Amino acid sequence: MGSIRIIALPGLPLFAPGDDLTGAIAEALERAELALADGDVLVAAQKIISKVEGRAVVLADVAPTPAALELAERTGKYPALAQLILDESQVIMRARQGVVIARHLLGHVAANAGIDASNVADADGETVLLWPVDPDASARRLRRQLESRFGVKIAVVISDSLGRAWRMGTIGTAIGASGLGTLIDRRGETDLFGRVLQATLVARADELAAAASLVIGEAAEGTPVALIRGASYIRDETQGIGPTLRPLNEDMFT
Amino acid sequence: MGSIRIIALPGLPLFAPGDDLTGAIAEALERAELALADGDVLVAAQKIISKVEGRAVVLADVAPTPAALELAERTGKYPALAQLILDESQVIMRARQGVVIARHLLGHVAANAGIDASNVADADGETVLLWPVDPDASARRLRRQLESRFGVKIAVVISDSLGRAWRMGTIGTAIGASGLGTLIDRRGETDLFGRVLQATLVARADELAAAASLVIGEAAEGTPVALIRGASYIRDETQGIGPTLRPLNEDMFT
Repeated sequence: MGSIRIIALPGLPLFAPGDDLTGAIAEALERAELALADGDVLVAAQKIISKVEGRAVVLADVAPTPAALELAERTGKYPALAQLILDESQVIMRARQGVVIARHLLGHVAANAGIDASNVADADGETVLLWPVDPDASARRLRRQLESRFGVKIAVVISDSLGRAWRMGTIGTAIGASGLGTLIDRRGETDLFGRVLQATLVARADELAAAASLVIGEAAEGTPVALIRGASYIRDETQGIGPTLRPLNEDMFT
Repeated sequence: MGSIRIIALPGLPLFAPGDDLTGAIAEALERAELALADGDVLVAAQKIISKVEGRAVVLADVAPTPAALELAERTGKYPALAQLILDESQVIMRARQGVVIARHLLGHVAANAGIDASNVADADGETVLLWPVDPDASARRLRRQLESRFGVKIAVVISDSLGRAWRMGTIGTAIGASGLGTLIDRRGETDLFGRVLQATLVARADELAAAASLVIGEAAEGTPVALIRGASYIRDETQGIGPTLRPLNEDMFT
């Protein structure tokens, strides 16, 4: 019988640039009397990765270009925020009053190019958080440091709450990963009746991020990291989130 | 500290039209020495709901119209399958070789209008499964029967593995629900620094379906039902999956 546990790591501090995230996570695990075990998956909210990596930007420091002023005019976004969205994007896919959907430099499609203005330590709302420059590398670093500290093999997923084209509400989604095959390819396996499965490619990293979002950010005090124990995945030390991004030449909705 | 368990129900049988799904689930729970508790969420794969509700169709019984022949020609799908896709859809959104993306009659956007040809008891592949006619009603029926049998209040989610516009791989997604608010509206709540959250609408039913997909269908013998214990959600006895569908007038990607 398969059984999986999702555990919110308690008592993590607020993070600032340069903080030792690995140390803080290790301490939180120890306080909870949890030792990492082989096969564990740690899901960390993008927000804390961005914070320790110094990705907060003061909007007042951003000088909007004419393109940003035009985007701001069209959408009602602050011009400086519009500039950051442009800076973080390959292309703006849709823009209308209150909404900007962009393809981020990393290839993910996200509202505001993933820029989030909540939970940043600036009460007047003038600081925003950009995504990590390379979330796969952030995940790899965290994975290796935790593996070496605990003497285990684990996977790490960096998640953000993203919207979807035809559905309301956000869902935890992987924007970086290390230690696992982010897609599981079942094509060629057979079903219960011996027939070959045609189109079963499973977005395992996204499923893990979504499962973690049942606890991440739930408590008022903030729970940015979840431990998932017992989930099956394929160990892969080289793959990142890339295979989960649909190639542009297969994209039918740009 | 929040902790959630996801448990695959062991030993469920293969289902046929008219089978007592509630009874089979209750027996599987009893065999696993699990009693349902208040707040539990049961996630059931669409496949078994469709089977007990007699939604299997023999392709040879379907006479394709000229529109279906044209869609089949354009996509390489069997003409009878193309006919069923048309019958199950409001509109075909994209069609090209090997791919049909449709808005299902129920409002969900899905490849092949959600029609799945795997795991149906017909080895020559000529039988396919349509979605339940009203998955919210299926979820409600299952919820009420289990609630009455176990004397508890639970939620039920009907899930299918759906693809996404810009991402590869499928992820468990809710196509029917009962007993919970499928969206959680956090707009107006404040963040750690007292600022009001602007756009935090959480797709809780989809998160639960995605979490369950970590165990559903994992084992070779098939595990179509998962029990999720410890997840937070808002009790709602009247809402279905409807609020999770983006209204057509807000759809930017049709």
